[in-house]
Order: sequence, then C-alpha cells, then structure tokens
Amino acid sequence: MRMTEILAKKKNGQPLTQAEINYWIDGCMSGEIPDYQTAALLMAIYFRGMNNEETVALTSALARSGEQLDFSGLAFVADKHSTGGVGDKTTLVLLPLLGAAGVRMAKMSGRGLGHTGGTIDKLSCIPGFRTDLPRDVFSRQVGKLGIALTGQTPELAPADGKLYALRDVTATVDSLPLIASSVMSKKIAAGAQSIVLDVKTGSGAFFQSKERALELARLMVMIGNSMGRRTAALLTSMEQPLGYAVGNHIEVLEAIAALKGEGPADLRELCLALGTEIMLLAGKETDPEQARERLEALLAGGEALAMFRHFVAAQGGDPEVTARPELLGVPAAGRAVFAPESGYINRLDARRVGEAAVMLGAGREKKEDPVDLTAGIKFYKKVGDFAEAGEHLADVFCSDPQKLRQAAEHVQSAFAFNQEKPPERPPILGRIT
Amino acid sequence: MRMTEILAKKKNGQPLTQAEINYWIDGCMSGEIPDYQTAALLMAIYFRGMNNEETVALTSALARSGEQLDFSGLAFVADKHSTGGVGDKTTLVLLPLLGAAGVRMAKMSGRGLGHTGGTIDKLSCIPGFRTDLPRDVFSRQVGKLGIALTGQTPELAPADGKLYALRDVTATVDSLPLIASSVMSKKIAAGAQSIVLDVKTGSGAFFQSKERALELARLMVMIGNSMGRRTAALLTSMEQPLGYAVGNHIEVLEAIAALKGEGPADLRELCLALGTEIMLLAGKETDPEQARERLEALLAGGEALAMFRHFVAAQGGDPEVTARPELLGVPAAGRAVFAPESGYINRLDARRVGEAAVMLGAGREKKEDPVDLTAGIKFYKKVGDFAEAGEHLADVFCSDPQKLRQAAEHVQSAFAFNQEKPPERPPILGRIT
Repeated sequence: MRMTEILAKKKNGQPLTQAEINYWIDGCMSGEIPDYQTAALLMAIYFRGMNNEETVALTSALARSGEQLDFSGLAFVADKHSTGGVGDKTTLVLLPLLGAAGVRMAKMSGRGLGHTGGTIDKLSCIPGFRTDLPRDVFSRQVGKLGIALTGQTPELAPADGKLYALRDVTATVDSLPLIASSVMSKKIAAGAQSIVLDVKTGSGAFFQSKERALELARLMVMIGNSMGRRTAALLTSMEQPLGYAVGNHIEVLEAIAALKGEGPADLRELCLALGTEIMLLAGKETDPEQARERLEALLAGGEALAMFRHFVAAQGGDPEVTARPELLGVPAAGRAVFAPESGYINRLDARRVGEAAVMLGAGREKKEDPVDLTAGIKFYKKVGDFAEAGEHLADVFCSDPQKLRQAAEHVQSAFAFNQEKPPERPPILGRIT
Repeated sequence: MRMTEILAKKKNGQPLTQAEINYWIDGCMSGEIPDYQTAALLMAIYFRGMNNEETVALTSALARSGEQLDFSGLAFVADKHSTGGVGDKTTLVLLPLLGAAGVRMAKMSGRGLGHTGGTIDKLSCIPGFRTDLPRDVFSRQVGKLGIALTGQTPELAPADGKLYALRDVTATVDSLPLIASSVMSKKIAAGAQSIVLDVKTGSGAFFQSKERALELARLMVMIGNSMGRRTAALLTSMEQPLGYAVGNHIEVLEAIAALKGEGPADLRELCLALGTEIMLLAGKETDPEQARERLEALLAGGEALAMFRHFVAAQGGDPEVTARPELLGVPAAGRAVFAPESGYINRLDARRVGEAAVMLGAGREKKEDPVDLTAGIKFYKKVGDFAEAGEHLADVFCSDPQKLRQAAEHVQSAFAFNQEKPPERPPILGRIT
C-alpha cells in the first residue's frame, strides 16, 4: 500500500477501504507517513467527502489509536456530548439526574475554547473538586456511585489529537466526516454503551446552518449505531444563550437551581429532553412520557440534588456549595447593561455573548489562557421579553474592573429590538435516532 | 498575513493576491511555512484552480526564488520547450538550424524520466560533450557561437523544485496552473526573450486528452506573454513515436540525418514548424512561408549541419560523429520484431514504445537510475504502412541480451493492425500565439 495511491484515489473521488484508512492513521501516528501527506489528504477529504463506510472506518481507526475504556462489565453506561454552546450547563444537571434514575454515566469533558464554555472550567469553581481522575478511579466511581466526570486525556484517541492539530493549521476543520469521526472516536474510546448527542445550531453554535447541523447529527448517530453503541441526537437551538447565566461559577449556580426543580425553563426543558433520550437508550423506560415524568419527579423530590452532592463529594469537592453559593466564588466588580431603546427583544446573539464572556475572562482565546472563574454575565431579559429604554437587561462581572466596559457594550450589542413580539422558537428542533 | 487565512481563501474558492502568493513561496523556501501547509494548499489549488493573475504571480514567485539569467544585452535569445515525448530529438536539430539562421538559442534541458526521453541523455552519447556548462560559460557561448545547451540546475527556480517534490508525493502533479507555472518559471528564470513551446498530446504525452493539452498550451502562452516574453506554442501529436528511432545514440543519428536534409518526414516537419515559430518570434522573418524556405535552405545547403559541428566542438564534443556514427556507441545485442498478422498499421502506441525503451535501459524509472546509451528501438514501419505477417517491423537493442525478449514483445504489443488504411493524421494539431 502506498500513501500516494491513497491520495490519488481520494482526490479522484474514489472511496478508501478500511485497510487504506488504517494504513494512513497508523502511519501518521508512527511517523512513517509524513504530515504533508496527511495534510494533503485532509484537504482532499474536505473536497471529496467520505461515505458512511469510510467515516466509520476513520472513527474506528482514531478510536483504537490509544487506550480504550471498557464498561462492558457494568449493566449500562451512557455518555452525553454537546457540540458546544453558550451558557450550556446541561451536563451538570444531567449527570446527577440520570444517576438518581439509576443510569450510569461516564463523562469525559473538555475545557472552554473561543466563545463556547467547557464543563471542566465550570466544575473547577467547586472547592476541592477534582477534574483529573485517574482512569481506574474514574471507572470505579462509575461502578460505585453510578456517575463520574473527568477531563479529556491525550491517551484516548491520540490520533484524533494529531489529526485535529493538522486540521487546525490547514483550514480543514469544517468537514462533516472529519468532525463527526473526531467527536465519535473519543466517545467510542470512552467506552459507554450508549451516547446521546446534543447538536446545536444557530449563531452560538459551530454550525449556524440548521441543515449542516442536522447532517452532522445524522452522521454521528449513524457512526455510533454502526459501531454497536445505541446512539441518538437532538438538534437544539443555540441562537441565544441557554438559561440566564453565562460564565463559570454563575452557571454552576444555575445548574444547582435546575437540580432543585427551579431555574430557567429552556435549561430544564433541554435537560428533560436529553435525559428522556438517555432513559430510552438505557432501556430504563420505553415510553418517553413516562421517562420524562420520572425525571421530573427526581427533580421535584430532591433525589437529583442529593445525587449532585454525592457526586461532588466523591470527586473531592465541597457539597455545601448547594446551600452556600458564595463558596463558588464572588466576583470583585460588576457593571449593568441597560436597554438602549424600548421594544421586544428580537434577538440575543449567542456568539456575541460568548465573545463578551471571553472579554471578561470567563473563557479563553487560546488553549493556554487562564480563566477567571468568577467572570460571567447574568441576564434579566431574553428573546421575547419586552424592555423599556433604560431597563436593566443584564450584568457583567469579573475580577478585573478594567474589562467591564467593553464587555458590557458587547453584551448590549448582542440585543436587537422590534416593536412586534417575535414568534416563539422551540428550543428543540429535531430528534435523530 | 497568515498561512491559515491563505489556505481558507483558496479552499473557499477566492483568488489569492500576488502578495499572498509571494508570502507562501518565500515562507515555503525559508522554512517558516511548514510543508504540511504547502501540501494542503497544493491540494486546494488542485480542486479550486487558479485564475490567470494567480498563475502569473505564482510563476513569477517561483522564477525569482533563485538565480535568474539575463540575456537582455544580446540582440535576441530564444528558448524552446517540449512537454515530453517518445523519440523527440527536435532540440538536437532546432538549435543548430536556428543558430545557422542567426537566432541565438539558450537551452536548458533535462534528463529522461519514465517513458519520455531527455536531451541531456542523448547528447551524452557524443564523446567529450559537456552537458554541465557553468552559467558564465553557457552565457558566453550564447553570445559567441549563438547556441548553447546545458543541464537544468537546482539554482534556477529552486522553489519549483521544492514544490514539485511535494506535488510528487501528494498526488497534485496533474493541476494545469501548477504544471504551467512550473514549466514557465524555469523558462523565465533561464532568461530568453522568446519561448516556443511544443505541447504534445496523445498516448505518449503527459496529457493524452487534446483538450487538456490545448488548455495547458494556452495557459503557458498567456504566462509567457504576460511576463514580457514573446511566446507561442504548437499543439503536436504524440500518438506514435517521432521519427523511426527511440533511444539515445540512435536518436542522435536520426537528428544528424535530419540536419543533412534527410531523415523522417514527421521529424523534419516538426522541426520546420517549430523553427518557423522561432523565426517569427525573433523577428527574423515576418512571413511564415519565407521563414520556412530559409530554414529548408539551411538544411539543404549544409549550414545547419556545420553549425551542429561547431556546437558539438564548442561544448567539448567530437564533431566527427556526423561522419562516423560508431563514435556514438554500438549496441552489444539486438532482436528483431516481426508483424504477427497482415494489415495496415493502425496504431503504434507511443507510451508502450517508451516503456519498452525503459525496459531496454534507454530510459529510467527513477531519477537515480543509470541509462544504457546504446539501448534503443529502430522502426521500419509506422502508422499507415502495410505489413505482411512476419514482416520486419522494428529492432530492439541494448548492451544486455537478457532484456531483449520482453522489450521486443512490448514493442510488438504497441502495434495494432486493420484491413483498411487509416486516415492520415497531421503531426501538428494547432498553433497558439
């Protein structure tokens, strides 16, 4: 087998075989295939695409390039993945909620990058909370408590890390089969028997186009099911931030509220919808309505919150954060954002809000940047609400007062007003199984 | 300027500016831009193409990446380039013919590779002939004698060498703007004020499709003229070998015959047609018919042959080769090829003939392979001739008897027969100015 022949095949639009894809990925990792050949192939894949068989073969080659977790000894372990959004704290709610429902969840999460936040940053606000569990501790906790969360490690699907680094510098990130195989290879290596995907679309999502997001969702569900993992996806809206809180400590607070059965309606709705999918995939319920009712009862009855406290304690954190919010951190300075005109809020651009969060220090531009855990944005009005000119729309806060003004202006610019009330937009746009 | 932005532009189908192309080529040569980014860009160019402005800018960037010869002090210097063929010894005839007509020719030639031969290999058969003239000696000879020939050196357009090496291993050789800029960058750097291009099409040519070859010819003529060099091209047929001789010493013999006003009609016709173009570009004649008559007279009168002898002597070779063919070498062994059936020869596949020449050792598979200068093929019949079953079609010969049988079979398989006489096919298919 020769890499130039593989390159010529893909360039000419012929599908690659599994053996060819394995040869490529193995050679790329061993160094036998130089990076310039991989880079050229990535560009050819961008233009020619990959069919389902190729995409599954690539996912498989990436997944088996490193360590693979194995939960086959446990009755059922589920995983959840979001393609990234602004104000998305669903993992913090879903894990304890599903754990309380008896579904095991083994979750590997990432840090925030660009305008999207990351679960690891959020949980770092809880004093003592460990987000770097060794793999044996992680697996044991899944078996014992039922839920566990840790940061993504380079030992899982290392070929994906290498490929992603090359895609990043060769303008080949935005290829559907490359995105889908990248995401799914890590999920496959992480070992869960079922996977629920939250594929977001809208201004704050990776894919702003609903069609592209739907295509990605279909592709990832196809990969998961082809590889023996029960997989489903929801297509969800990321036009405006999820909930009223964007940042790190402030999102933990909002998640705790949701676990108490309170909190924003859109966050609750998304958690119940994703939770229902997991209940069905895990075989805990067969009827979606019954699954949802059971989850609602676990929120209302305090079991979900109790599981959150056990989860925090198991990972070395202080469970008292559910009663004493100040333990999560207190921002040093804040500034209010007011409505520049009267009208119905027609738009609250999630991407701009995410950018404002980065300006405040709640997120990072580059992987190495530090994060200000107390920085964030609290909204009082969202799309569909009416605001008088001068009315309080939001607060921005962080530990550096110098950053407030620019961020506040950016948040204000995320709002658009109209004299007519905009139509209701559903948070969940589609379901792919 | 950032390479990732340049990559994204090309990937999305936007044209690159001259500044961006310079940034790329300069960075590629300095090592600031890693090869994987260049490889990805080459693949994106394969898919998106380049417009005329981009192609000229790339040619210019490649040409100025190294030394550039300057013949602006001389009245007029011409250059000739062939895209490569089988049995193509026109350079050996054209240089002395044009030199006798008072046109200066500064020619850099390559070695043979794959099924196509190279002028440098052919001239190496002449005892003492130097094909590695230092640039000052080369330039002086152009000024003094009028014609000079030397091997291509890596000092001219080194960025083209680097880019070509990457294209070779990333399956991006067959891109028209990359081919055209590669060829023309070397011609531009070689300094001639006018360039005539022999763009071949047919089974033995790089481009078998006439449409693609015509596109390449147009592109190269556009580049030359845009860069201030008077440029013209002929589109010529490479369905069957040119002349009756394929190899090295045997092609020199056939070229000498042509210089004596003898030799095959197709070779003579191509030399006169290309020569006429050069006469017109050089301003020696304004009427093509008069130009052709003058060249015919120089062949008939012995001036072209005399110039060949001066040329050989000037480059250290023995001019007696024109009278004593055995000085060029004598093959140790030979084998005849006979007609397997009766009929008109309908096809004599130039590519197969070129492959047979490589089998005999007359050409090379890889750059490093040695060449058997006495190896070759002599034809007695070509397309349009009638052959009885068992009639003598060709001889194959070389210094290693073991190679004869397979090569003879391959030559035989290059012939196809038909009961009807095939229509005459013109050797010159088009003229692009």
